[in-house]
Amino acid sequence: MNLKQMVGIEAAKYVKDGMTVGLGTGSTAYFMVEEIGRRVKEENLNIVGVTTSKATEKQALSLGIPLKSIDEVDFVDLTIDGADEISEDYQGTKGGGAALLFEKIVATYSKEVIWIVDESKMVKHLGAFPLPVEVIPYGSDQLLRKFTAKELNPKIRLTEDGNPLLTDSKNYIIDLYLEDISAPQELAVWLDHQVGVVEHGLFLDMVTRVIIGTSTEGVKTINVPR
Amino acid sequence: MNLKQMVGIEAAKYVKDGMTVGLGTGSTAYFMVEEIGRRVKEENLNIVGVTTSKATEKQALSLGIPLKSIDEVDFVDLTIDGADEISEDYQGTKGGGAALLFEKIVATYSKEVIWIVDESKMVKHLGAFPLPVEVIPYGSDQLLRKFTAKELNPKIRLTEDGNPLLTDSKNYIIDLYLEDISAPQELAVWLDHQVGVVEHGLFLDMVTRVIIGTSTEGVKTINVPR
Repeated sequence: MNLKQMVGIEAAKYVKDGMTVGLGTGSTAYFMVEEIGRRVKEENLNIVGVTTSKATEKQALSLGIPLKSIDEVDFVDLTIDGADEISEDYQGTKGGGAALLFEKIVATYSKEVIWIVDESKMVKHLGAFPLPVEVIPYGSDQLLRKFTAKELNPKIRLTEDGNPLLTDSKNYIIDLYLEDISAPQELAVWLDHQVGVVEHGLFLDMVTRVIIGTSTEGVKTINVPR
Repeated sequence: MNLKQMVGIEAAKYVKDGMTVGLGTGSTAYFMVEEIGRRVKEENLNIVGVTTSKATEKQALSLGIPLKSIDEVDFVDLTIDGADEISEDYQGTKGGGAALLFEKIVATYSKEVIWIVDESKMVKHLGAFPLPVEVIPYGSDQLLRKFTAKELNPKIRLTEDGNPLLTDSKNYIIDLYLEDISAPQELAVWLDHQVGVVEHGLFLDMVTRVIIGTSTEGVKTINVPR
């Protein structure tokens, strides 16, 4: 069993009967969704899933997990999702899979948020992984220039055929190659304020539990004080 | 000639040969675009227009005004647009026509911004006119609840057939019925920070000239110190 599968299965244990569960997106979240699907089928687990992307919606439906939109539930009991990086003080970046907007919307209305990662994602400071910013296509070249002027080293994310990648909301992704994000709160406020920025991949003060797959010590679970 | 037409024609006088001009949206901006179209045709005025909505794009094309996207120009020399309200200290709200996102994007990259209004739009404090907020459809009911909890008196804007109105970017508009916006800067920062909010109708520290149509004194022009 690989590390991603290991933490996916471990995280699914926190799902209890009757819960509304936010289902994350990405290669690690994939295994968690598979395991929840197995429990729904084999253990008659009774839950409602709230998905964070069209890809996860498709997977969940194929597994027979009942789904609702974030707008059809009062709140989400627990969201389980991957992360691109988690710093020593449990701030995170997400969006490598281009699903950051819906992931952030679902996490915002969740009582508990579990991130599942392999040990390579645990870092001292955020920034080695590019920070995705979802932007309105109209004006995106102007934003690229503004980000360049602020030395944020931006690159528009392209698909294999060389066109800008479109998110589920038909926006573009600009990746910021920052190396080191020394002041994530300050950067988040600045990005929030930019006209044309829909959302960014800084997920601050959001996670309540981190489950880490390690090659030497197995699964480690950390409860994050909030 | 009505007041809207009067200020539209007056504002078009600020357009000079060689300029890149941001063309606003709405019932007042309509007359300004018509007048610029007339000058292009009759006076051989040589400009490039940057539009702020599909509606204005259609109008400008029908008038033979050459157009570029905001991403095809270095910057905009002058943007002329309407406003829903302008306060005594020249802060404004916009978005009654649901075009606030592209209007704000174009204004952001403009060296000069002229707002054209009739005298009824000049107010002591902002807020009698509902404040539009453009939001991602996914999670919009959750945002409505959050805005209600913060006593912002939100209502989703509907079309005549009772469905949520879709903006040019396929988002929803939530109108906030606030009566009095006592601290616009603070409200703007809070709205910017909300997940799912794409943009809001507070246009702060943005206008450089206001042209007002009055029934008793004709056209009044105010240069705003910035």
